[in-house]
Amino acid sequence: MAISGLLRCGEVAIRVFDLDEARHHYGKCIGLIESYEGDDDKIYYKCPDEHDQYSIVLRKDDKPGIDYFAFKTLKDEDLEVYEKGLGEFGIECNWIEAGVYPKSGRRLAFTLPTGHEMHIYAHKEQVGNGMATLNPGTIPDEGYIRGMRTVRVDHLLVGGPNIDQNREIFEKVFDYKVSEQLISHEDGSRLAIFMSGSNKPHDIAFILQPEEGRFHHVSFLLDSVNDLYHAADLIGKYNIPVDVPPNRHGVTRGATIYFFDPSGNRNEVFTGGYVHYPDTPTLTWDTTELGRATFSHDNLPRESFLNVLT
Amino acid sequence: MAISGLLRCGEVAIRVFDLDEARHHYGKCIGLIESYEGDDDKIYYKCPDEHDQYSIVLRKDDKPGIDYFAFKTLKDEDLEVYEKGLGEFGIECNWIEAGVYPKSGRRLAFTLPTGHEMHIYAHKEQVGNGMATLNPGTIPDEGYIRGMRTVRVDHLLVGGPNIDQNREIFEKVFDYKVSEQLISHEDGSRLAIFMSGSNKPHDIAFILQPEEGRFHHVSFLLDSVNDLYHAADLIGKYNIPVDVPPNRHGVTRGATIYFFDPSGNRNEVFTGGYVHYPDTPTLTWDTTELGRATFSHDNLPRESFLNVLT
Amino acid sequence: MAISGLLRCGEVAIRVFDLDEARHHYGKCIGLIESYEGDDDKIYYKCPDEHDQYSIVLRKDDKPGIDYFAFKTLKDEDLEVYEKGLGEFGIECNWIEAGVYPKSGRRLAFTLPTGHEMHIYAHKEQVGNGMATLNPGTIPDEGYIRGMRTVRVDHLLVGGPNIDQNREIFEKVFDYKVSEQLISHEDGSRLAIFMSGSNKPHDIAFILQPEEGRFHHVSFLLDSVNDLYHAADLIGKYNIPVDVPPNRHGVTRGATIYFFDPSGNRNEVFTGGYVHYPDTPTLTWDTTELGRATFSHDNLPRESFLNVLT
Amino acid sequence: MAISGLLRCGEVAIRVFDLDEARHHYGKCIGLIESYEGDDDKIYYKCPDEHDQYSIVLRKDDKPGIDYFAFKTLKDEDLEVYEKGLGEFGIECNWIEAGVYPKSGRRLAFTLPTGHEMHIYAHKEQVGNGMATLNPGTIPDEGYIRGMRTVRVDHLLVGGPNIDQNREIFEKVFDYKVSEQLISHEDGSRLAIFMSGSNKPHDIAFILQPEEGRFHHVSFLLDSVNDLYHAADLIGKYNIPVDVPPNRHGVTRGATIYFFDPSGNRNEVFTGGYVHYPDTPTLTWDTTELGRATFSHDNLPRESFLNVLT
Repeated sequence: MAISGLLRCGEVAIRVFDLDEARHHYGKCIGLIESYEGDDDKIYYKCPDEHDQYSIVLRKDDKPGIDYFAFKTLKDEDLEVYEKGLGEFGIECNWIEAGVYPKSGRRLAFTLPTGHEMHIYAHKEQVGNGMATLNPGTIPDEGYIRGMRTVRVDHLLVGGPNIDQNREIFEKVFDYKVSEQLISHEDGSRLAIFMSGSNKPHDIAFILQPEEGRFHHVSFLLDSVNDLYHAADLIGKYNIPVDVPPNRHGVTRGATIYFFDPSGNRNEVFTGGYVHYPDTPTLTWDTTELGRATFSHDNLPRESFLNVLT
Repeated sequence: MAISGLLRCGEVAIRVFDLDEARHHYGKCIGLIESYEGDDDKIYYKCPDEHDQYSIVLRKDDKPGIDYFAFKTLKDEDLEVYEKGLGEFGIECNWIEAGVYPKSGRRLAFTLPTGHEMHIYAHKEQVGNGMATLNPGTIPDEGYIRGMRTVRVDHLLVGGPNIDQNREIFEKVFDYKVSEQLISHEDGSRLAIFMSGSNKPHDIAFILQPEEGRFHHVSFLLDSVNDLYHAADLIGKYNIPVDVPPNRHGVTRGATIYFFDPSGNRNEVFTGGYVHYPDTPTLTWDTTELGRATFSHDNLPRESFLNVLT
Repeated sequence: MAISGLLRCGEVAIRVFDLDEARHHYGKCIGLIESYEGDDDKIYYKCPDEHDQYSIVLRKDDKPGIDYFAFKTLKDEDLEVYEKGLGEFGIECNWIEAGVYPKSGRRLAFTLPTGHEMHIYAHKEQVGNGMATLNPGTIPDEGYIRGMRTVRVDHLLVGGPNIDQNREIFEKVFDYKVSEQLISHEDGSRLAIFMSGSNKPHDIAFILQPEEGRFHHVSFLLDSVNDLYHAADLIGKYNIPVDVPPNRHGVTRGATIYFFDPSGNRNEVFTGGYVHYPDTPTLTWDTTELGRATFSHDNLPRESFLNVLT
Repeated sequence: MAISGLLRCGEVAIRVFDLDEARHHYGKCIGLIESYEGDDDKIYYKCPDEHDQYSIVLRKDDKPGIDYFAFKTLKDEDLEVYEKGLGEFGIECNWIEAGVYPKSGRRLAFTLPTGHEMHIYAHKEQVGNGMATLNPGTIPDEGYIRGMRTVRVDHLLVGGPNIDQNREIFEKVFDYKVSEQLISHEDGSRLAIFMSGSNKPHDIAFILQPEEGRFHHVSFLLDSVNDLYHAADLIGKYNIPVDVPPNRHGVTRGATIYFFDPSGNRNEVFTGGYVHYPDTPTLTWDTTELGRATFSHDNLPRESFLNVLT
């Protein structure tokens, strides 16, 4: 009890066209820390306030999008529980041995009804957040926090069909809650589902899309609206293609900027949002308020935001 | 010396269709303080941290835009100096007696080459900022600062032909400096001129427009990017039509939101920007960087921002 | 799994000398919302972004301190599990029927080894956070958030002997984790223990004190350092006795202000702090860094902070 | 008119015991930019958003304090005007040729009634703020802004006898205004005088002290309360001796931290404060509110703040 089971999205494996360009974007501009050296076609990153070895994996490919995403669970024995639970939904799981993914324990791998490959693991080596565990102080050495001053990977949004089945799996197998949902005002069907297993307003979200396995965005947590503005200044400075400049989501009440990596994958920087608990009432938005639900500063839905995925 | 002469834009007289709607917008939503009761067809407002009796005058009319704007000068005898200086530019002045504008000393009134009526006055009664002058403390009573938490009127942008002549008058007669300018990269001609007589990056700006006497926006100063986000939250809540949601100007480096009053007049809330001195180098932007000059978070020029005036 | 069991400190029952004075402090100055009318000798408050009927109960008495604190758990059947778990530690529980505490389900009540009365309940009526659950928007009506702009009750710090036994109970019975601890550098004994069952760096903390049942402080969450400064401005304006003006804790990395209610009970406003997970390494501070652990802006331990409790 | 004459405190010459220690403090911790290489016993710094070659000069000596401070005036011919004006107060001036102070035009040097050596100059070479003057963008390259993220030198506070004579000279010769003053509630005599020649609430302040030529502090402007907290985090990290951790002044309403360089000279980081104009009413604080006037978050006067000068 307390927090147990699926803790967070601990790894997103993104495909990029060119590693040098990607390193400029994720390393220099965003300021992620290259934290592991592996295969030549991959770059491993962590955010400054994450303890685990890496949370973002870039892989060179000729098609953008994600290979998989992985959640960390609290205990290794959770994996068998999940295998069984997923089986009851007809989801077949594969076991990946420890070490296949660097510094990682064994993994349970499976495909969600939306067509996404998801992993679950309980162990990844920890390299710390730049501060000691004995008398750590409050701020790492200058330069450790850089670029957009990200804190950690916050959440993931993916698109595909069958999002209601994903929801059911996350509710029943992982005990996640629907914090918010966007429904059609015509037939009440769910168009987007936001799910939380933590005090964050969402850990993962699903958006209805005809095509399977689509990637909408990975989101990096920032400390404050000031840091969000600082990130926006860098985005402009580096001529990073912007999807949506600073705004606030109706859903989650988080302050946000959306932009694209050089391969067209969407990134978000995010701050704020309310404190979520499993007894927080689920919030529902219908499509009459699509603008307010997505971008509440001008209540204007963005076509690209809704329809561009990789 | 030190700061003398034209201190600031101390009064903007805006035409609105409907006073009740305008009162909802400027009073409730923006949070201006109704600070004088005059004619039935007018509303007088001040911002919380202004000392003078009023700075915004709304007048009911069937055409939006501004009637005039007025600058406060330090000394009453400045007016004769300005009358003479303006005369050298062929500008004819009228004298308006004290009291014609409520609580105001005598005024010099004239029309700028861009077709705008401008007043200069040295006296207006002061009603204070909600705090005493003896042992004032740092924050007024709860409710005095409300709505968008404006601090004061910051600056004004107006459009018309002959902006270079306006510039020359502000330089020669008022000793204002061009802090920044936007020029055509083709012929070097000035398309927008930003002028400062203070430590603010601009007190008034002129944008080239074919038609005379146009009003682009009046800007209200906020304390922080946090208050800018708070203002944006209210703008969304009250369904205020937005021109440009939170962004940062290249010109002035100020953080900004543009929105419209119910009559279509543009308002801005603004925070930040650099400290300007008369020895600060003039910054020039050319039209190859029109996007960055206007909205530096996505370097995207907005058609409406450039072309909608009242 | 996910978040389950003890969710948060949902209720703190504080004794105050005078209800009118207390109402001025908690209602007007802090800005809590009086959300239930009960007995004449009690005031019930909630913070603006809490959904439950109340979270702070003031009771008129001639001795300050707390009567009890209460945690909300996710499911009513958790209570039997806890009764059993507590029994294994020799803790005897009493059952309190639903409705004895207004709008509350049944409760398990018991005394911790530190001498504090603790309740656990699964149900309390919800009155919402001032916004709808269908198309809620992002900001409630003006005036709903007021005073110090608190978001919610964040955590509680209490003092007594046997804090290691409290720790063991929270670890074993409630699955809470020690996020941080302060130990004597001489003998390694724990002087303060910070425990989290959530993504917050602490939900409750225990400080070693010779006397049982002491109250150190209740903490209110704020949104930003800007709001912390705004709270400090109000604290100064209202001449509220201050224990420690704005600073940052080493422990939790949260920004903080400590002050006292008119009866001498300590309050905190708090913002920031890291995102905690059960796999976050426990941080240890020893008494050679007592200053940095408590107040990291000047690394100066405060005598009053360590020793004044009610 | 507009802003003319004495623009700002453009140079403070501080004595330090050890240049390496001082370089660690002012360069690494505060983040000033070493911007000129001169004599072996001096270090020249500028803040990131200043254009002039340097604003802080450190000189190795065995006694802390300041050698002199220098104001920049708008025009070289102002110097003769000031020489005459100062002469009327019986102040004798010396002329220092251009180039004696590196990259500086000729200077007028004199001693104020408080015993401080003051210079006035109109020219200093400009090296810019890390951004171009054509299409500058809004943020310099990463690393240009570092340490405490200072913007510029904001103001200076010095102590000595005869502060009323200093005031008269600044009023009559330089047209500066008393923005605020602290008076004895017993006899109305001025104990501290805050003077502004700009839109800042003060450019220089004088505090009554029996000994001549004392230095209270030099203040560095920051962008936001967030940056103030970041500065405080670094102050704690680097174990910089703190005089007063984050608070807000009653006088000026600026947010502040005071700390000491390794030689005992006091530094301030400062943000906020109101927009000042020459028609802003002078604010007066009397000694019954000495706490609120100095540190308004807890209304507590600090002995060290009032009495420690170098």
